[in-house]
Amino acid sequence: MAEVVKVIELVGESKKDWTDAVSNAVAEACKTLDNVSGVEVCNLTANVDNGRVVEWKANVKVAFKVDNSRRGV
Amino acid sequence: MAEVVKVIELVGESKKDWTDAVSNAVAEACKTLDNVSGVEVCNLTANVDNGRVVEWKANVKVAFKVDNSRRGV
Amino acid sequence: MAEVVKVIELVGESKKDWTDAVSNAVAEACKTLDNVSGVEVCNLTANVDNGRVVEWKANVKVAFKVDNSRRGV
Amino acid sequence: MAEVVKVIELVGESKKDWTDAVSNAVAEACKTLDNVSGVEVCNLTANVDNGRVVEWKANVKVAFKVDNSRRGV
Amino acid sequence: MAEVVKVIELVGESKKDWTDAVSNAVAEACKTLDNVSGVEVCNLTANVDNGRVVEWKANVKVAFKVDNSRRGV
Amino acid sequence: MAEVVKVIELVGESKKDWTDAVSNAVAEACKTLDNVSGVEVCNLTANVDNGRVVEWKANVKVAFKVDNSRRGV
Amino acid sequence: MAEVVKVIELVGESKKDWTDAVSNAVAEACKTLDNVSGVEVCNLTANVDNGRVVEWKANVKVAFKVDNSRRGV
Amino acid sequence: MAEVVKVIELVGESKKDWTDAVSNAVAEACKTLDNVSGVEVCNLTANVDNGRVVEWKANVKVAFKVDNSRRGV
Amino acid sequence: MAEVVKVIELVGESKKDWTDAVSNAVAEACKTLDNVSGVEVCNLTANVDNGRVVEWKANVKVAFKVDNSRRGV
Amino acid sequence: MAEVVKVIELVGESKKDWTDAVSNAVAEACKTLDNVSGVEVCNLTANVDNGRVVEWKANVKVAFKVDNSRRGV
Amino acid sequence: MAEVVKVIELVGESKKDWTDAVSNAVAEACKTLDNVSGVEVCNLTANVDNGRVVEWKANVKVAFKVDNSRRGV
Amino acid sequence: MAEVVKVIELVGESKKDWTDAVSNAVAEACKTLDNVSGVEVCNLTANVDNGRVVEWKANVKVAFKVDNSRRGV
Repeated sequence: MAEVVKVIELVGESKKDWTDAVSNAVAEACKTLDNVSGVEVCNLTANVDNGRVVEWKANVKVAFKVDNSRRGV
Repeated sequence: MAEVVKVIELVGESKKDWTDAVSNAVAEACKTLDNVSGVEVCNLTANVDNGRVVEWKANVKVAFKVDNSRRGV
Repeated sequence: MAEVVKVIELVGESKKDWTDAVSNAVAEACKTLDNVSGVEVCNLTANVDNGRVVEWKANVKVAFKVDNSRRGV
Repeated sequence: MAEVVKVIELVGESKKDWTDAVSNAVAEACKTLDNVSGVEVCNLTANVDNGRVVEWKANVKVAFKVDNSRRGV
Repeated sequence: MAEVVKVIELVGESKKDWTDAVSNAVAEACKTLDNVSGVEVCNLTANVDNGRVVEWKANVKVAFKVDNSRRGV
Repeated sequence: MAEVVKVIELVGESKKDWTDAVSNAVAEACKTLDNVSGVEVCNLTANVDNGRVVEWKANVKVAFKVDNSRRGV
Repeated sequence: MAEVVKVIELVGESKKDWTDAVSNAVAEACKTLDNVSGVEVCNLTANVDNGRVVEWKANVKVAFKVDNSRRGV
Repeated sequence: MAEVVKVIELVGESKKDWTDAVSNAVAEACKTLDNVSGVEVCNLTANVDNGRVVEWKANVKVAFKVDNSRRGV
Repeated sequence: MAEVVKVIELVGESKKDWTDAVSNAVAEACKTLDNVSGVEVCNLTANVDNGRVVEWKANVKVAFKVDNSRRGV
Repeated sequence: MAEVVKVIELVGESKKDWTDAVSNAVAEACKTLDNVSGVEVCNLTANVDNGRVVEWKANVKVAFKVDNSRRGV
Repeated sequence: MAEVVKVIELVGESKKDWTDAVSNAVAEACKTLDNVSGVEVCNLTANVDNGRVVEWKANVKVAFKVDNSRRGV
Repeated sequence: MAEVVKVIELVGESKKDWTDAVSNAVAEACKTLDNVSGVEVCNLTANVDNGRVVEWKANVKVAFKVDNSRRGV
């Protein structure tokens, strides 16, 4: 049976930087999704307060293989 | 724990106009999603019949905070 | 009650060609989703090995009507 | 014989708002085209004069089924 | 006199696949247009019913040379 | 002397709808800019709270003629 | 009655340069269209032969006001 | 102190051609901005009247170094 | 009175990395702008010399609330 | 040593269909490139003559691993 | 054997204008490439110094037929 | 003789982060290319395994001045 991958969209956040924000989004996805295989950046933004960046935000797409033993997406 | 937001894509419809179509999409999302925070328009279309617009359709992305007490997305 | 359509993103794969890859993605979606109405191509790629295309991959968006009897998306 | 749809591009205008501008474009198309089936927004602009919006302009694509009894597009 | 090419937008449909859908759009255009020279794909979609793709739809641009003996486009 | 137009980017907000949000952005610009000639929509979003849209936001570009009597942009 | 503008797509060509290619496209359109108001560049290409550019090609959109006395677009 | 560049958006116009329209936009910017370093084309349009192009318009982004002796942008 | 946000475009630079380049752009903006609320990445480039990246450059949009006590944008 | 992949752009052609056109492009690349790993479609066009598609053309990007034993790209 | 075209990306420069910058890029490509068939503009920029444009830069894609007698791309 | 710059596309990889992935791509290019002047990010992705990002991948364009003493690109 041909493999099917599903893609969901998340926004990860971090006080540190965008690399950490992406890692947070992947970690969150992996809490319930088993076969997460990749991530792609859609957009990079940040919140600013009092003259400084306070929150780095990474809008990403996360891909995971749909497990054929379960029924569909 | 850093916050993670999930983004889903819906198409809202309305007999009235696009503003109403977007409100319908948000209302539908809020039936089961608790922390819906925002909506963004991707595309605006409409069905035409008998020389008049009969259905306004708004393709939107809806963002909601993933509730950390539950496991992942 | 106005109708709402949900859109999910899948990547279908096939050893044959892209048409088959799209059909596989639709078949997978229809395992659990009842009112699948349409599919749109986002991107067409393929894996190459030993000088030949070995896997055709179609990144698609699949649309289905949210069943109002159930609560929301 | 498989159906073919043609797509033309119009700019509708209105003193009221964009919804009305789109309706005007559709009405104009339906003067001579029989099977207009849908409309899609490409761009939304407006003219400003004396500190106020005076003309709402909607750049749209209008789709209509090519009538097979007539010869082609 | 320098040559001018006109570009129109069509949506071809087919029960078979996208290649056939594009051929149908070209055939329709050639019913009335003499110097059709090329076609470009804008978008590939399909209608789904009962768990299967039932209609392959190709949104295309068709280019043809404006015949200078006739007046303009 | 050839005319030059400057383009600035604003985000208008409204409790009512997007048409009103655009009008607010134009009104704000016209407080200090004399020759505002047009506005173009870049993006339409909205804030959601408690299951309802509470703030309609229109990201727009506003164009105004640079007054040659003054020095430059 | 609100004004409606129609937009057609042409490719102008010239042995000289792109400015001339655009002028040729406009001239061709004006042979049969009365109220041509503007032109926008979509794409600039050129044919090359024997190490030199031999044909400058400008893919443009031409806008003209639909004359309300006539029936529709 | 790291250098910061600011980018503004202008529309230059000319009766001659687009190269001249861009030069006019740069000249206007340089009336008040000291360190203009570059310009990028966003869009090329033109006004048409009486069958001929009468005004070439270049929508451009102009970049200039923010002078650190002055406070900010 | 509804709130209006203005968006300006800056290019931040840094010898260290892109995160630092974005922080520099935000710091520069905050020298004169009071209510800076967010930043979005448009483009990431870098200068290379002698086989190594010597300058990381982040093209960003910075958003700030227009202070209603002052007149307009 | 971290792996580096190079991406080149080709246009494959075929009398049959786009799948074959892509295969031709991959075959051509593999004549001299050893580690071709993937291909992505950028654009699908076709030449038309005498009312029929005569040449299917696929504009693709082909990726291959740069062999570290050789010096660079 | 089906024909394959390769596409490379160049930036041509000129003290005169963009048409000349494109011609320079084509001339450079034709020094070593035999079957250059076409060029497409990706981006038009210019360097500014002392209040005037000093260098017109055209970012282009140049297409050439891969000579089948030689091995691959 | 006007200068010509060539642009190639690479994908750099790193176990650390995207900044390092870009540096690896630049280092690889500089093995054989003398006048590398700049790099631009096209896309940022990463491979995920066992719930963690294992490979940061930066799809970039690298620009280098074509050395006029050698023949062409």
